Amino acid sequence: MKKGILRPGHVQIRVLDMEASVKHYVELVGLILTHRDSQGRVYLKGWTEVERFSVVLVEADKPGMDFMGYKVIDDQSLVQLTQDLLAYGCQVEHIPAGELDFCGRRVRFFGPSGHWFELYAEKEYTGRWGIAEKNPEAWPRGLKGMRAMRFDHCQLHGGDLHLTRELFIDVLGFHLAEQVVNEEGHAVANFLSLSTKAHDVAFIEDGNIGGFHHASFLIDTWEGLLRAGDLISMSDTSLDFGPTRHGITHGQTIYFFDPSGNRNEVFAGGDFHYPDQKPITWDEKHLGKAIFYHSRVLNERFLTVMT
Amino acid sequence: MKKGILRPGHVQIRVLDMEASVKHYVELVGLILTHRDSQGRVYLKGWTEVERFSVVLVEADKPGMDFMGYKVIDDQSLVQLTQDLLAYGCQVEHIPAGELDFCGRRVRFFGPSGHWFELYAEKEYTGRWGIAEKNPEAWPRGLKGMRAMRFDHCQLHGGDLHLTRELFIDVLGFHLAEQVVNEEGHAVANFLSLSTKAHDVAFIEDGNIGGFHHASFLIDTWEGLLRAGDLISMSDTSLDFGPTRHGITHGQTIYFFDPSGNRNEVFAGGDFHYPDQKPITWDEKHLGKAIFYHSRVLNERFLTVMT
Amino acid sequence: MKKGILRPGHVQIRVLDMEASVKHYVELVGLILTHRDSQGRVYLKGWTEVERFSVVLVEADKPGMDFMGYKVIDDQSLVQLTQDLLAYGCQVEHIPAGELDFCGRRVRFFGPSGHWFELYAEKEYTGRWGIAEKNPEAWPRGLKGMRAMRFDHCQLHGGDLHLTRELFIDVLGFHLAEQVVNEEGHAVANFLSLSTKAHDVAFIEDGNIGGFHHASFLIDTWEGLLRAGDLISMSDTSLDFGPTRHGITHGQTIYFFDPSGNRNEVFAGGDFHYPDQKPITWDEKHLGKAIFYHSRVLNERFLTVMT
Amino acid sequence: MKKGILRPGHVQIRVLDMEASVKHYVELVGLILTHRDSQGRVYLKGWTEVERFSVVLVEADKPGMDFMGYKVIDDQSLVQLTQDLLAYGCQVEHIPAGELDFCGRRVRFFGPSGHWFELYAEKEYTGRWGIAEKNPEAWPRGLKGMRAMRFDHCQLHGGDLHLTRELFIDVLGFHLAEQVVNEEGHAVANFLSLSTKAHDVAFIEDGNIGGFHHASFLIDTWEGLLRAGDLISMSDTSLDFGPTRHGITHGQTIYFFDPSGNRNEVFAGGDFHYPDQKPITWDEKHLGKAIFYHSRVLNERFLTVMT
Repeated sequence: MKKGILRPGHVQIRVLDMEASVKHYVELVGLILTHRDSQGRVYLKGWTEVERFSVVLVEADKPGMDFMGYKVIDDQSLVQLTQDLLAYGCQVEHIPAGELDFCGRRVRFFGPSGHWFELYAEKEYTGRWGIAEKNPEAWPRGLKGMRAMRFDHCQLHGGDLHLTRELFIDVLGFHLAEQVVNEEGHAVANFLSLSTKAHDVAFIEDGNIGGFHHASFLIDTWEGLLRAGDLISMSDTSLDFGPTRHGITHGQTIYFFDPSGNRNEVFAGGDFHYPDQKPITWDEKHLGKAIFYHSRVLNERFLTVMT
Repeated sequence: MKKGILRPGHVQIRVLDMEASVKHYVELVGLILTHRDSQGRVYLKGWTEVERFSVVLVEADKPGMDFMGYKVIDDQSLVQLTQDLLAYGCQVEHIPAGELDFCGRRVRFFGPSGHWFELYAEKEYTGRWGIAEKNPEAWPRGLKGMRAMRFDHCQLHGGDLHLTRELFIDVLGFHLAEQVVNEEGHAVANFLSLSTKAHDVAFIEDGNIGGFHHASFLIDTWEGLLRAGDLISMSDTSLDFGPTRHGITHGQTIYFFDPSGNRNEVFAGGDFHYPDQKPITWDEKHLGKAIFYHSRVLNERFLTVMT
Repeated sequence: MKKGILRPGHVQIRVLDMEASVKHYVELVGLILTHRDSQGRVYLKGWTEVERFSVVLVEADKPGMDFMGYKVIDDQSLVQLTQDLLAYGCQVEHIPAGELDFCGRRVRFFGPSGHWFELYAEKEYTGRWGIAEKNPEAWPRGLKGMRAMRFDHCQLHGGDLHLTRELFIDVLGFHLAEQVVNEEGHAVANFLSLSTKAHDVAFIEDGNIGGFHHASFLIDTWEGLLRAGDLISMSDTSLDFGPTRHGITHGQTIYFFDPSGNRNEVFAGGDFHYPDQKPITWDEKHLGKAIFYHSRVLNERFLTVMT
Repeated sequence: MKKGILRPGHVQIRVLDMEASVKHYVELVGLILTHRDSQGRVYLKGWTEVERFSVVLVEADKPGMDFMGYKVIDDQSLVQLTQDLLAYGCQVEHIPAGELDFCGRRVRFFGPSGHWFELYAEKEYTGRWGIAEKNPEAWPRGLKGMRAMRFDHCQLHGGDLHLTRELFIDVLGFHLAEQVVNEEGHAVANFLSLSTKAHDVAFIEDGNIGGFHHASFLIDTWEGLLRAGDLISMSDTSLDFGPTRHGITHGQTIYFFDPSGNRNEVFAGGDFHYPDQKPITWDEKHLGKAIFYHSRVLNERFLTVMT
């Protein structure tokens, strides 16, 4: 958070069929539907998130991620970050307040990985969903499905991890929590954090320029992941892999697909990583164990299917 | 328990390399080594079991199960069961007390599935391991690995499920808890219980006559299964599948192999089934979901590899 | 189960205010309301129970337990058990089928502890609630509150434990799983089981003749008990104690009160006890640890307040 | 972390009997003993912590806390923070490097609550205990007792919460995560965080000037807290309260005492709190629920006993 960027604030995901997708994210994942805008976009959030939305679904011809936005602590920091982006040589777009309902102005840039990112400092503050600000209960009644707590991070594929790391670490103030390094000592995956989270974004270097591997949502416990798996089965949802543990972050995980083929993760637990902690390195030859700690084998689908 | 048979009392498993196997069952699975006999056989038990042993390892040229033994409540019941087996037409062998150290006389018969079974009424009573009989603590210090609580059941493959069911239900007093039925209405798998357990033995009808699919051990919780998976990875043990939930029994499970290729299961939770409860039926076309509830797909290995 | 008695089949509980009680047992405990009879009694069950009901609430002037009923496997066993009760010197009442809707004839007797018990062999078979008999899902949608799985047992206080044990063990076929013994070697508490459950009824010898200490309901996990405690707080329900672990049975527990002052328990886990296992003995001087394993101190309320 | 302070880095605790205390913190709490210095002080850490130590035990005539230290990201930030402390009017002591073995220079100040605090930027980096920096396993073998993961925070009692808040928020860069406010609107408890943790220190305003209420250690899960309670009982350790959930932070907790009467907490779970999130307020009249969410009643001991 040293440059004022706090956390992932939102992601806009393209879906092929809005009502099927709303059902998926609300009834199965358990996000809260908080708004539909005049363009037909649907706004969602996890119940612990204090802003109006963190996921935006937009109907489109092909699935994938339109952009990922980061929350900045105040406008002064946003101004400074904008200058730093420009100084670094990034082209920057200014999206006026209101383009996303309830959201202030956004500063957008295109990353070397082939994805659009944005920064914003203002969004309607609604507090956590379903519990009071004063004397709050432990959790709200009426949560659905997996009871996802928050949008947590995305995994993004594409080109030039070296440039990406330079941009996200040197310019934006992320720190490197974990990495995968190949036999030549070249990093092929970077897990970058803003606070003590295991990561706030994951970048994989491969030929899937602009590829969207998954959006991840936090749930509370390993037992919650068992229930998540049960719900995936009960709802005839396409499972990718899990429940299992990751080697990287050591968090517990289950992967599945939304009706448009976008991969979702729900996870629980995992290591914390302070900025003064050395990055944890995984050798690419142990990639199976790094990703799926129990089986130590990657399924082909996990490596190649993305949107 | 209506004919006096209480539970699975022991299984004798063939292993190729005794010391590697002892390491596997003691350090990884967490069984307690309680004896080595003059033949070099190794006796083991789960810590909650009150008799001297429940698993016997014997070195041999090929892996597999030699026999599975059931504990009978008293010798009077054993006499009656022997008469009933003979009356049914079973050939019966009498193994004298002491052939297995600490175990009384055993009545052995060959089942239609191609496996040897035996009944016994006496075995040295040692109490639960590591905790006192009076004012016992919740669990003992010094448990290793997965901390397996008890030998629970075996899954056995082979021929003529109809005859097997007749023998185990009508003659021995098991009840049918769950079954898998094919499109012709023919049962291809039977899960048989003596008490309220989900099953005390599972029989699958296929061409693997006398096949030993797995021996299963109870552990306490789903979190224990996460640790089990971690230990499988840390010890470079061959994982078959899991952690996941079963459809049949709805218990949680992880499968892996001992160094000789015998499959082990550790599981937690699962349904109970009283004798007045109707059997639960799974359609063979849903076999994937019946076995692996989350993925709903069977790996080929699970169906074909056994010892 | 050696005499054919399977398990606790029902308990009739007196409540002061029916609608408040229905709310408590349905919305908080999570039982399923399955019937209201012409007398205004309300019939409930846990979702895993296969018969029409296991709890009957009846409005009355003072709280407490009217009677506890046990399920017998068939009418032939019921006939034999009736003869055995009479031979033992018990007075027996015959309640005709239909006095409780959906329930067959009941054989009622008064125990030395000052409570009414009954045996029955027939009750409407409805199957588990909310899941199919074929290819059943892991759990039903729509469960409420603590999602109690089944009525499990009662703890009953009163006189002459010696006679009670004689009746329940010698005549009815229970076995003694655990006991508390005072310094004179006299048993002051008996935990009696029909199968491998930690207990199917608990008797405490003290001056509260006919006292109803609690009815207990099974829930799935220790995490479920955390949620139970949360719901007790959220609904401003009177907590007695917990969550914690018991010494006796080593199960995990939380105690609370229904709106009429009847104590409820929900519990998870705990030891199993086969009939060939020696009873586990607790010294009365360790009663605190035997009841509340963590604090090792009994609250006065737990010892003295009952209905 | 906006002023460069990352987290609690160490606490020095006074104990009456060093060997009994070492046994408590190592065998029961599960900290790793990493050093004994020439003064006889004992250095400990949780296994996930990357620096050489986080707890220092010193033998003394009376129990309590000598000082609590915070890790600063670099010396430049330490210089700035020192200037800010001086500018605010704090008296500052300079402790040279090496006064605590393996620790760089420390800047010490006395807070309005009556406690000594210090800042440091350098301490020997040892990495997490028992797992490799490259391709690390999920957890190390050989952990003892409760397997405490890290020293997490202290709760400190004393005077003038208003001044304390000014110092910690305005000068040191903490943010207010939760507070308890009395009927006059005056805050009586403040929970202050440096990152997204529920808190990095808790201050209670009462007459116990310089009072040390407890040091808290993170463990992994609610099931870990059950084990912690079991171990407290097995080792005849004095329990204060729990396991239960807090209202404040909604974490799960158990309190107990070290052999010198210093209170310890181990906890799991709990809310996260970003700096842009409004503080959560509890009314003092709900203090019982705020502290012990299930019972909603404070034991007198919890409010008054401290060292």
